[in-house]
Amino acid sequence: MVDHTVRSFDAELEQLDRHISEMGGIAEKMLADAMDALATMNVELAQKVIATDVRLDALQRTIEDMAVRTLARRQPVAVDLRDVVGVIRISADLERIGDQAKNIAKRAAKIAGESRIPRAVIGLKSMHDLAATQLNDVLDAYAQRDVERAKAVWNRDMELDQLEDSVFRDLLTFMMEDPRNITFCTHLLFCSKNLERVGDHTTNIAETIAYIVTGASLPGERPRGADSATSP
Amino acid sequence: MVDHTVRSFDAELEQLDRHISEMGGIAEKMLADAMDALATMNVELAQKVIATDVRLDALQRTIEDMAVRTLARRQPVAVDLRDVVGVIRISADLERIGDQAKNIAKRAAKIAGESRIPRAVIGLKSMHDLAATQLNDVLDAYAQRDVERAKAVWNRDMELDQLEDSVFRDLLTFMMEDPRNITFCTHLLFCSKNLERVGDHTTNIAETIAYIVTGASLPGERPRGADSATSP
Repeated sequence: MVDHTVRSFDAELEQLDRHISEMGGIAEKMLADAMDALATMNVELAQKVIATDVRLDALQRTIEDMAVRTLARRQPVAVDLRDVVGVIRISADLERIGDQAKNIAKRAAKIAGESRIPRAVIGLKSMHDLAATQLNDVLDAYAQRDVERAKAVWNRDMELDQLEDSVFRDLLTFMMEDPRNITFCTHLLFCSKNLERVGDHTTNIAETIAYIVTGASLPGERPRGADSATSP
Repeated sequence: MVDHTVRSFDAELEQLDRHISEMGGIAEKMLADAMDALATMNVELAQKVIATDVRLDALQRTIEDMAVRTLARRQPVAVDLRDVVGVIRISADLERIGDQAKNIAKRAAKIAGESRIPRAVIGLKSMHDLAATQLNDVLDAYAQRDVERAKAVWNRDMELDQLEDSVFRDLLTFMMEDPRNITFCTHLLFCSKNLERVGDHTTNIAETIAYIVTGASLPGERPRGADSATSP
């Protein structure tokens, strides 16, 4: 009887993990598609991303309901409790990452008709490459419950902040060169903020992994690059 | 013995509520001070806000630890379980609101030396007035467990999105009028985003109140004004 109960709890945790994996995969694809839509002015792809966000939100609610029911029924303690609390947090961060992708897609649909400045989009691509790598790494770290790998993601977020600063400076330069660039570059500025926030949520997931495994958070303030709220 | 146990759980919930109240008050003050610092170019006040965020983050971790311990020890069910899960969520949203205030303060410190465009700051003040009212209302709604009041906050978020759109249009106009306005206005654009996000987190708190009281979320998509990711 006890064995059966333990296996049931493990089975519920495994199901929650599968849902987290599923959410992670959807969020990764949304981000890639949103950036693709932005770079190629593909309105249809942008709309597909916006529609997918509904699915992601529904999955997050499913995970949260299941986790809360597990808390109620299984009444876990210690590391099992942290596992379930961790799932609630991670699903919330993945849902927010999906929102950032959706916002990028909305802007892509909006500015598809505007005159583009290809060099302005290049900086954003670098940000996306790093953000996508970080997200992939942190999802792997979660699957492996690997704290060292989570710490590496946490530390690397500083690079994304630094990239954001240089994108900010470049976009400001384009705007000052020619007022006709202003609208387009302003939208790209917001996209760079969306990508920086994907990085923040990815770092939150890294912290949650450390919390699940060790019961403690990662030490100290998150490392920051050049202050991301400022430009030199 | 049973009575004693029930009172202990109630006492823990009351303590959690007091902490939430405290967090709410700190977040409200940080927001007001950050906007004040921005409007009056008060670097010292901006730095005070930035320092206060550390205290807010610590309080959020305290609440979360206490809530998780309550889940483990009291093993609550039904509405009591939702109370505790709700506290975890609300403390996370209040911590994010504090982050938004801190980001506004950082920009205020950054642009204090720049030439100002008073009319550009006026739109932001309107956004802040509404965001501050919403936050205050939702904290009251939580203290009263008042779902109708929470719903009103949730519905009113659309006004904030509409305000953000008009601020966006105005700032774009100022930037196109004169390239020397671009840097200052770009920072204000980000501040308007910070305020819009305060509204989002306030709306999340409204949804959590509905979840605590009814076990269900607020119906349908959050009402949106003119799409906040776009400008006409």
